[in-house]
Amino acid sequence: MSIINLLTDFGYSDTFVGTIKGVIIKINPQAKIIDLCHNIKPQAITDAAFCLLNSFAYFPKGTIHLAIVDPGVGTKRKAILVETKDYFFIAPDNGLLYPALKQQDIKNIVEITNPKFFLKPLSTTFHGRDIFAPVAAHLSLAIKSQNFGKKITKIKELKLPQPQRQKNELIGKIIYIDHFGNLITNISKKFFDRAIKSSEFTICFADKKIEKISSSYLEKKERSPGALFNSFDNLEIFIWKENAQKILGLNKEDIIRINIK
Amino acid sequence: MSIINLLTDFGYSDTFVGTIKGVIIKINPQAKIIDLCHNIKPQAITDAAFCLLNSFAYFPKGTIHLAIVDPGVGTKRKAILVETKDYFFIAPDNGLLYPALKQQDIKNIVEITNPKFFLKPLSTTFHGRDIFAPVAAHLSLAIKSQNFGKKITKIKELKLPQPQRQKNELIGKIIYIDHFGNLITNISKKFFDRAIKSSEFTICFADKKIEKISSSYLEKKERSPGALFNSFDNLEIFIWKENAQKILGLNKEDIIRINIK
Amino acid sequence: MSIINLLTDFGYSDTFVGTIKGVIIKINPQAKIIDLCHNIKPQAITDAAFCLLNSFAYFPKGTIHLAIVDPGVGTKRKAILVETKDYFFIAPDNGLLYPALKQQDIKNIVEITNPKFFLKPLSTTFHGRDIFAPVAAHLSLAIKSQNFGKKITKIKELKLPQPQRQKNELIGKIIYIDHFGNLITNISKKFFDRAIKSSEFTICFADKKIEKISSSYLEKKERSPGALFNSFDNLEIFIWKENAQKILGLNKEDIIRINIK
Repeated sequence: MSIINLLTDFGYSDTFVGTIKGVIIKINPQAKIIDLCHNIKPQAITDAAFCLLNSFAYFPKGTIHLAIVDPGVGTKRKAILVETKDYFFIAPDNGLLYPALKQQDIKNIVEITNPKFFLKPLSTTFHGRDIFAPVAAHLSLAIKSQNFGKKITKIKELKLPQPQRQKNELIGKIIYIDHFGNLITNISKKFFDRAIKSSEFTICFADKKIEKISSSYLEKKERSPGALFNSFDNLEIFIWKENAQKILGLNKEDIIRINIK
Repeated sequence: MSIINLLTDFGYSDTFVGTIKGVIIKINPQAKIIDLCHNIKPQAITDAAFCLLNSFAYFPKGTIHLAIVDPGVGTKRKAILVETKDYFFIAPDNGLLYPALKQQDIKNIVEITNPKFFLKPLSTTFHGRDIFAPVAAHLSLAIKSQNFGKKITKIKELKLPQPQRQKNELIGKIIYIDHFGNLITNISKKFFDRAIKSSEFTICFADKKIEKISSSYLEKKERSPGALFNSFDNLEIFIWKENAQKILGLNKEDIIRINIK
Repeated sequence: MSIINLLTDFGYSDTFVGTIKGVIIKINPQAKIIDLCHNIKPQAITDAAFCLLNSFAYFPKGTIHLAIVDPGVGTKRKAILVETKDYFFIAPDNGLLYPALKQQDIKNIVEITNPKFFLKPLSTTFHGRDIFAPVAAHLSLAIKSQNFGKKITKIKELKLPQPQRQKNELIGKIIYIDHFGNLITNISKKFFDRAIKSSEFTICFADKKIEKISSSYLEKKERSPGALFNSFDNLEIFIWKENAQKILGLNKEDIIRINIK
């Protein structure tokens, strides 16, 4: 049985995702299709890259991760298939896969060009249906990567924004806001620990200051913001049982500073 | 293995869809259930008909398409099962199936009346759970259509709005707006090509004019609207990487005119 | 084949639900995962309890109901596994399971403590991924309940709000509002029938009065509110083809009175 894991910005209002599933099971009725998420903001390649990075490794070996956030659909941007030690990845070549692939041993990169595996007629607006889905489905039938096109050696790079250290200050920013309104920064636990060691520190944002990392959401019972390292190991600002984004009025790209004493 | 493809206006906030799936797999644990879409606007039969029309054929032969948008639930409107050359369709008889069925060879139409296949007690507000889901599940176990009720010959008609030609003008309208804000008209490529041939033309809407069909979204890089034939082969107004609906302030039912020179 | 039925407040915007599915199928590739609903309002334990109560019994015997609405994640609140005559339930011990369990024969309650079944490292913010999903997956492989921790005898209670009778008046309230804007009260058909018998009555809310129970939505064709017993057997205020919540301006917790003549 083959698992195909879908990540798109297609939303839940139309039949785009459902149609893709129809195409897949028409080719491989045994395919097991998982919805990683379809509410990536339209064309938000960086959000999709961040989401894929933080979840791909929780899937079984052999999973085909099919990620479609594709503002360049219908143009000459490449469609790629990447085979790593444990997984397959299929996506438009726009950087989406780059952060997840950087963590893995890459075995093969193929530019998807073989029209034998495409639906006909080929639309210019829905390669999810006409190229990506049928390629993923055929791949799930154990067709070898090299059948889908020619080998290439490079893919488009995309670097997720990194935090900076300036003297006694760490400067990060909010890079993702989840459904609960938690504000996820680009400050990783590793980066934080290396800089802070056993020093005292103050996390500053808006007009708030936090001097302690909480061990859980519930530790901050009153309606004041806390900070903890979340399930991605990123520093996250939260308010217990509340929507921190709404209450604090913060947004993506807003700066979080950590002063080291 | 049997595929049941669900299209409803039940949304994602309640347990309606999940409960239907429970009912189905209780009867046929091997059923493979696909979510075509559950965000059809409440009671929007025409939207559902348009969505089904544009996606049913991407599914494997033998798929049971179960479509529930049912403002008449609990009344004497019929529940129908239609067997075509390649598929099964189950829905309330309110026109929802009509556009998709017009494209197919119909083998059987059955009015679903056999209470043997219904859940008891039968509610008056949730026939999705009590009638449609168990009938689809039993059908997926290869029970013959005729067991579910008596043959009928007619179903309710529903015609999707058609574009008109008046002298040197084509008059269409926006009939669907997708998650990205793309404005999908009822002007098909076939209708357009037949009328325009090699003439020059101007597509007019709001205070905008477009004189060319784009081959992809990206062709219009600046923030100005473009027009192309989309993956349904309908003329679509778009703005690359933007929400055309919001920027142009257009809505469903708004008129699109094409002047032929 | 084992069925795992998911009910969460994780929403559809992030990869939380998809990641949980990855974890499950990595442990049991044969698991059949159903999405009961993921749009429970953040931390709304009572809503989740109401949704589970009204849907669990539609699933096949042996289904593992995994319900995660967990404001206490990362604290000492227990994680529990409950085995009933027909089902398994896994959830944080915060009352969520209580109303559904009250209707069933309980065979075993286990506090989930065996770290052998947890992902490592264990986060403090996403026990859905690190504890609940892997436990459900291992349970679906027929591991016995007692392997997951020690037996306990009590779980946290949560009582859904009950209607009251005061002389010739029944006093209920709106406890749930569905996707269509239907206003679902806590007045069950049983409670109503016992109190009303064959008397005349008036249902009062806002400045409206209803003197009759409709048998279906369509019975009230004009744009005026009706009342019926819905598919959960709760009294529901509706407006045919309209959003009663928006039109009537009512909300959860608002009072509905029934005067008995």
